[in-house]
Amino acid sequence: MQNTLGAILRLTTFGESHGPAVGGVIDGCPAGITIDEKAIAKQLQRRKTGLQSFSSSRKEADEVLFVSGVLNNKTLGTPIAFLVENKGQQSKDYEQLKNVFRPSHADYAWFEKFACSSGSGGGRSSARVLLPCVVAGCIAKEILPAKGISVMAWVSSIGNVFLPNDFSEINNKNIEASALRCPDNATSRRMTKLLESLQKDGDSTGGTVTCRISGVPAGWGEPVFGKLNAALAHAMMGINSVKAFELGEGFAAAAMKGSEYNDALMMKGGKVITKTNHDGGINGGISNGQDIIFRMAFKPVPSIRSEQQTITRDKKKTTVKISGRHDTCVVPRSVPMVESLATFILADHYLMQKSRGK
Amino acid sequence: MQNTLGAILRLTTFGESHGPAVGGVIDGCPAGITIDEKAIAKQLQRRKTGLQSFSSSRKEADEVLFVSGVLNNKTLGTPIAFLVENKGQQSKDYEQLKNVFRPSHADYAWFEKFACSSGSGGGRSSARVLLPCVVAGCIAKEILPAKGISVMAWVSSIGNVFLPNDFSEINNKNIEASALRCPDNATSRRMTKLLESLQKDGDSTGGTVTCRISGVPAGWGEPVFGKLNAALAHAMMGINSVKAFELGEGFAAAAMKGSEYNDALMMKGGKVITKTNHDGGINGGISNGQDIIFRMAFKPVPSIRSEQQTITRDKKKTTVKISGRHDTCVVPRSVPMVESLATFILADHYLMQKSRGK
Amino acid sequence: MQNTLGAILRLTTFGESHGPAVGGVIDGCPAGITIDEKAIAKQLQRRKTGLQSFSSSRKEADEVLFVSGVLNNKTLGTPIAFLVENKGQQSKDYEQLKNVFRPSHADYAWFEKFACSSGSGGGRSSARVLLPCVVAGCIAKEILPAKGISVMAWVSSIGNVFLPNDFSEINNKNIEASALRCPDNATSRRMTKLLESLQKDGDSTGGTVTCRISGVPAGWGEPVFGKLNAALAHAMMGINSVKAFELGEGFAAAAMKGSEYNDALMMKGGKVITKTNHDGGINGGISNGQDIIFRMAFKPVPSIRSEQQTITRDKKKTTVKISGRHDTCVVPRSVPMVESLATFILADHYLMQKSRGK
Amino acid sequence: MQNTLGAILRLTTFGESHGPAVGGVIDGCPAGITIDEKAIAKQLQRRKTGLQSFSSSRKEADEVLFVSGVLNNKTLGTPIAFLVENKGQQSKDYEQLKNVFRPSHADYAWFEKFACSSGSGGGRSSARVLLPCVVAGCIAKEILPAKGISVMAWVSSIGNVFLPNDFSEINNKNIEASALRCPDNATSRRMTKLLESLQKDGDSTGGTVTCRISGVPAGWGEPVFGKLNAALAHAMMGINSVKAFELGEGFAAAAMKGSEYNDALMMKGGKVITKTNHDGGINGGISNGQDIIFRMAFKPVPSIRSEQQTITRDKKKTTVKISGRHDTCVVPRSVPMVESLATFILADHYLMQKSRGK
Repeated sequence: MQNTLGAILRLTTFGESHGPAVGGVIDGCPAGITIDEKAIAKQLQRRKTGLQSFSSSRKEADEVLFVSGVLNNKTLGTPIAFLVENKGQQSKDYEQLKNVFRPSHADYAWFEKFACSSGSGGGRSSARVLLPCVVAGCIAKEILPAKGISVMAWVSSIGNVFLPNDFSEINNKNIEASALRCPDNATSRRMTKLLESLQKDGDSTGGTVTCRISGVPAGWGEPVFGKLNAALAHAMMGINSVKAFELGEGFAAAAMKGSEYNDALMMKGGKVITKTNHDGGINGGISNGQDIIFRMAFKPVPSIRSEQQTITRDKKKTTVKISGRHDTCVVPRSVPMVESLATFILADHYLMQKSRGK
Repeated sequence: MQNTLGAILRLTTFGESHGPAVGGVIDGCPAGITIDEKAIAKQLQRRKTGLQSFSSSRKEADEVLFVSGVLNNKTLGTPIAFLVENKGQQSKDYEQLKNVFRPSHADYAWFEKFACSSGSGGGRSSARVLLPCVVAGCIAKEILPAKGISVMAWVSSIGNVFLPNDFSEINNKNIEASALRCPDNATSRRMTKLLESLQKDGDSTGGTVTCRISGVPAGWGEPVFGKLNAALAHAMMGINSVKAFELGEGFAAAAMKGSEYNDALMMKGGKVITKTNHDGGINGGISNGQDIIFRMAFKPVPSIRSEQQTITRDKKKTTVKISGRHDTCVVPRSVPMVESLATFILADHYLMQKSRGK
Repeated sequence: MQNTLGAILRLTTFGESHGPAVGGVIDGCPAGITIDEKAIAKQLQRRKTGLQSFSSSRKEADEVLFVSGVLNNKTLGTPIAFLVENKGQQSKDYEQLKNVFRPSHADYAWFEKFACSSGSGGGRSSARVLLPCVVAGCIAKEILPAKGISVMAWVSSIGNVFLPNDFSEINNKNIEASALRCPDNATSRRMTKLLESLQKDGDSTGGTVTCRISGVPAGWGEPVFGKLNAALAHAMMGINSVKAFELGEGFAAAAMKGSEYNDALMMKGGKVITKTNHDGGINGGISNGQDIIFRMAFKPVPSIRSEQQTITRDKKKTTVKISGRHDTCVVPRSVPMVESLATFILADHYLMQKSRGK
Repeated sequence: MQNTLGAILRLTTFGESHGPAVGGVIDGCPAGITIDEKAIAKQLQRRKTGLQSFSSSRKEADEVLFVSGVLNNKTLGTPIAFLVENKGQQSKDYEQLKNVFRPSHADYAWFEKFACSSGSGGGRSSARVLLPCVVAGCIAKEILPAKGISVMAWVSSIGNVFLPNDFSEINNKNIEASALRCPDNATSRRMTKLLESLQKDGDSTGGTVTCRISGVPAGWGEPVFGKLNAALAHAMMGINSVKAFELGEGFAAAAMKGSEYNDALMMKGGKVITKTNHDGGINGGISNGQDIIFRMAFKPVPSIRSEQQTITRDKKKTTVKISGRHDTCVVPRSVPMVESLATFILADHYLMQKSRGK
C-alpha cells in the first residue's frame, strides 16, 4: 500500500529528493543472503545523474549506508534499512518554481492532495525517490535461486528513433557499450543526434525500455489479482514518467488472429518450449518457463526551457520557463530501475511459491 | 495478495468456472450503502455469454445471491458475501482436453504451479472468475460521492478494425446501440464482418478497450507504489487476455517532444483545466481533475478450431482442435468488467483519501 | 484487517448470525491438501449449540458446503470458499430486544459505529460468526507437517470452580469424557452443579480455557510485531467474550524472580529441552521447541434472565429481561474454537518460515 | 506482518540494539500533522536506560533524526522516516555470551530460526528495538482528534508489591513523582526496597502495567479479527517480556456471574455511560465510549548474575553468569512504550473509522 511493494518480500521506501536522504526498509528477506556492495554500487552508478551530457548535471555520491539487518555483508533475517544521502541539491533552481505549477508535473495534483508541497525539487515525485528500488533489486537478485535467472533491460527507442525489430543480438556488452543503453551502435548514434538537437532547443523527449527475463521456471505468479504480469505492470507504472506497459506482443496482439498468435507447445531436449513467444512468457498470470518479455513507454521529460502556459498556486494565469539542470531524456537512466523492480517482483513471487512447497 | 484487490475496500474472489459457484467477499464497505440490484443485473447481463452470435453460447442465469452484509438492500458495514451459481457447464466439452495443454492457455503454467488442474473449463483462469468484480464494481459505484463521477468504457478496435481517432461523440447510447460496444455504427459493422469471417474459419481475434473516467477531483491516488495509474494497470492486467495497458497518450508519448506533450494548466470558470490531456488525467500517480483515459489490449481468444501443435500432460507431442463453444472475440464482453474494476479502484482510493481528512 | 486473519494463509470470514449463512474464504493454501470432512464435522459438532443442557437449545445442522477451491477432497491451490447455512433462527426471540441495548453486549457500540444494527440475533457479534474458523482450523491442520504437532484445549475453570493446578493427566479422552470438556471428572461434576444452580437462577458465568501445543519445532514466529504469542493473543482476543490472554506463567510471572523463573536449557536424548517451561514455549516471539501453553478468560454470558437497567435506541431509560435460549456458560463450546484458531495461526507461521527456506 | 504494525497508519521498525541505529517509517499519516519534538524527547527520556539505579546504566543520547516526511515540523503526507543512533554499546559485555544461549532469552529460538545471531546485545530481541514505537506514538497522538483523548499508563505491581486496588487517585503528577512510575508513594517506596534487595542479589523481577484511555468515542474498532482489544493485545504482546494481557476485569471476569458483571447502560447529562466498567470500555471489539482499561504482565528480566545451567551453540552443557549492565526490573521503563503503542493503535482505528464516513 502506498509506499510498500511486495507481499512476502516487502520494500518500503521513503525520502524526498531535496530532503536529507532517500532510503528503504526491506522486510521478509531470508537470513544469510549476501549483500553484494559492488553490484549495488554499479547499478547505482548506472542510474546516476550526470552520467553523460543528456542527463541532469546534479552530482550525487549515492553511497548506501546500511543501518540494520546486515552484518559482515550477510543479511540477518531482520529488516534491512538503508539510506542514501541527498547531496548537491541546488534548491535555488527550484526557488523560481515555488509558486507555479509546472505543466505535466505532479505539482498541481500533489498540492490538491496534501494541501502542501514537499519542498523543492519535486519532493516525493522526483525520480530520485526510486533509487532505493535499485538497492532492493540487487538484494532481491541474491534471494533468487543461484542458477540461471537473468534480468536484462535496454533502451528500445528514444523519441522517433527505434531499435530495429530484427535486431536480436542483445547482450550486456553491447548495451553497456552505448551511453544510451541501446544495444545497436548505429541506432544509438542516431539517438544521440536526436538528443543533441533537442538539448540545443531546450526540449526533451521520451522513449521505451524493453526487459527480458530468462530462466524463470514455470509456475511463478498467482491467478486473478496476483498475476505476475499484473505485479510487473504495477511496479513499472510506479516508475516516474511511465505511461504504458505491454507484455509479449502487447498492443500488437490485439490485431492478430488466434491462429497466428498462439504459442505452440513443444518438447526440446526434454524441456517444454514454445515455438513462438507472443505471450511473453506468462499465461494466466503464471510464468510458463519461456523468456518473460515486456516493454514500457516513458513520456518526455516535462521540464523544458521554452515558455509554457500555466497557473500559480493562487490560481492566476502565468507562464514558466524551466531553466535548472534537467535530463533531456530520462530513459537510459531508467534501465537499471526497470531491472531492479523486475528482480524484486520475481523474488517476492519466488518466496510465495516456496511457501506453497514447490 | 493473490485473490484480494484493494487496500481499504477489499474484494476477495473465489470460484472455478466449472465448480458450484463463483463469488466474492467485499470488506471495508461503509454501512448504509444502497445495493442497486437492477444495476447489478444490467451489468451482469452486459458481460453475459450468449449475448450475440460471436460469443460462446453457454447459457448462464447469473443471479446474485447475497449471503451476508446486506439487509433490506442496504449494506451493514460487515463483509458483503455473494455467490453466483455456475449453471449449464458442459464439462464434456472439456473431456477431450483433459490430457492436453492448450496453446496460449494457462493450462501448462497452472499445472506446473499447482501440480493439479482445477477441473474442467479453465478452472480459475476462465473469464468467468472475474464475474464477481462486476458485482463489486456496482457496489463501489454507490460508495463514490453522489455527484458527477462517470466511468465509461467502449471497444476501440477489434482485430485490424479501429474506431477512428477523431470519433469523439462517445456516449452510453451509441455504445449500447452496438452489439460489439463500439460507439461508431460504421466501424461496428466492419467489426461484425470481420468476426463473421473469423467465426466461419474457426479462428479468433483480439482488440482494445478504452475507458474514460470523468468527474474525479484532483488528489486521489498515492505517490510511489500506490499510484492510481499503477492500481488501474494492476487491476486491468488481472483481466484475462489483457496484454497491455496505457494511460493518456501511452506508447505514443514515447515519441513526442516535451514541448508537444506537456499539458498546459489553465483556469476555466474558476476551475483548473488543462489545454490538452496527454497525461490522461493522472500526474505522479495522483488524479489531476481532468478525465482519466486509459486503454488496454486483449490478445486473441486462444481456443480455435484449427489443428494446433502441442504436448500432453506426460509431455508427449500431440495436436489439438478445440471444438467446444468459445468466443470468437472476448473484447465486447470485457467492457463492463473494465468499468467495474476501474470503479472499484476509484472507490478504494476515495476511502483512502477520506482517511487522510480530505 | 477487519475480517481477515493471517499473512500468507489468510482466512476471510463473513455472515451474520441470523442471515442466510456464515462462511469463509481461505487464500494461500497449498494445492493437494486433504479436506478431512469427518474431522470438520466432528469439530463443528463439538462447538454446536444444544450440545447439552447448559447451552442454548438452538438447533443447527452446521453442514459445510464447499463452493470453490476443492475437488475430490483435495485443495486446488485456489481460494477455498465455504458456507454453513443458518437454520432454526428464532428471530422472534430477538423481537423484544429490537429497541433496547443489552448490557455488556455489543449492541450499543455497534449501533454507534455503523448507525444500523445487523438484524436480529447479535448480527456479526454473535459467537456463530466464528464457526468458519473451525472449518479453517481443520484445513490448517492438514497443512502442518505430517508428524507430531498436536493442539489440545480444555476447560480449566468455570466460575469459581478450578481444575487443580497439579492435575496433569490431560488427554483427549478425559477431555471428551466430560460434557464440559474439563479433563478431571471430579472438577467437572462440581462445575456441572454450579451451572445447574446458575441456570435455575437465569444467571450465567465465565471461565477459562487452557491450550497446549506440542511438537512445534524451534524457529516459528517473527520478531517484533509478528511474534507468535502476539498472533495467538490477537486471534484469541477475537473470540467472543474473551477478556484476557496469558502465555506460560502469564500474570503469575510478574511476581516471580528471575532466578525462579528462568527456564534452564538442557540436552536430553540429543534434543534441546528446558528444565521448566515458565515461558510457555515462546521466547522473543519465536517458538523454542517446548510445549506452547496459553490460557484465556471468558467473561460471563451477558444474556441473563434477571431484570437489568439499560437504555433504548432513542436513549431513554428502560429495563430488560432476556428470555430467549442462551448459554449459561459459553466456555465448553469455545474449546474447539480455541484449537482451530491456534492451528490456523501455526499453519500461517509454518508457511512463513517455509518461505524463508527452512 | 513481521515488522509492520497498523492497517491504514502503518509503522515499520528496523534496527538491532548494537547496530548503527534503530528507527522506523510511518506510512499513511495525513499531511499537516505537527511533530512535537519536545513531547518526543520527553517520552524518549522516560524510557531511557540509566534513568535510575535499578535500570541498566547504558548511556544513550536518543536523539531523533527525521530523514523524510517532515518539513518545518509538519508532516508532508509522505512516509516519515526517522533514526535514533545507537551510542555507548559495550559489545565486550556480550563477548562472554557469544557461544552460549542465555536461559529465557530469545538466543536459542532466534538461532534456530535464522541460523545466525544478530550480533551482540540481543540484536532485534532487545527492548531497544521498540524505541521507534515511542516516536510513532507521539506522532499518532497528534493525528487523534484535538480534544479529549488521554492515554495514561502506570506501574501497578513490581514483584509481589501491588498498588492497592482501591487506590484511584491516579494522575500524571503522582505517576511522574515516582521513579518507578507507581502513583502511590507508599507502594513506590516498598517497590524500591524490593528492587534494592534484588539488585544486591544480582536477581531480577517482573511486574504489571495498567493503562487507561479516556475520551474515545463509541464506535472505534472492527468486528471479528479487527477488534480494538485484539489490536491492543497484539501490540502489547509485541513488547519484550510481556506474557499476559487483560481488558477490564480480565481473568477475574471468568469467575463472575453475569448478574454481577454486566455493565448497566445509563444516561448522564445527555451522554451514555455505564454504571460499572467491567468490560473495560470495549464490547464486541468496538469502543463503547467508556474508559478503556487494560493491564499486562512483564516477566522478570532474564539477565541475572547467579550461575545458570544452559547449553552452548554446539549443544554442550555449560553454565553462565550474566555480568553486564542489565535492568533489575524493566517495568517502569515500559510505561511510555505502553502509552505509545496504545496511542498508535487508536490513531489507526480512528483513521479507519474516518474512511467509513463517521
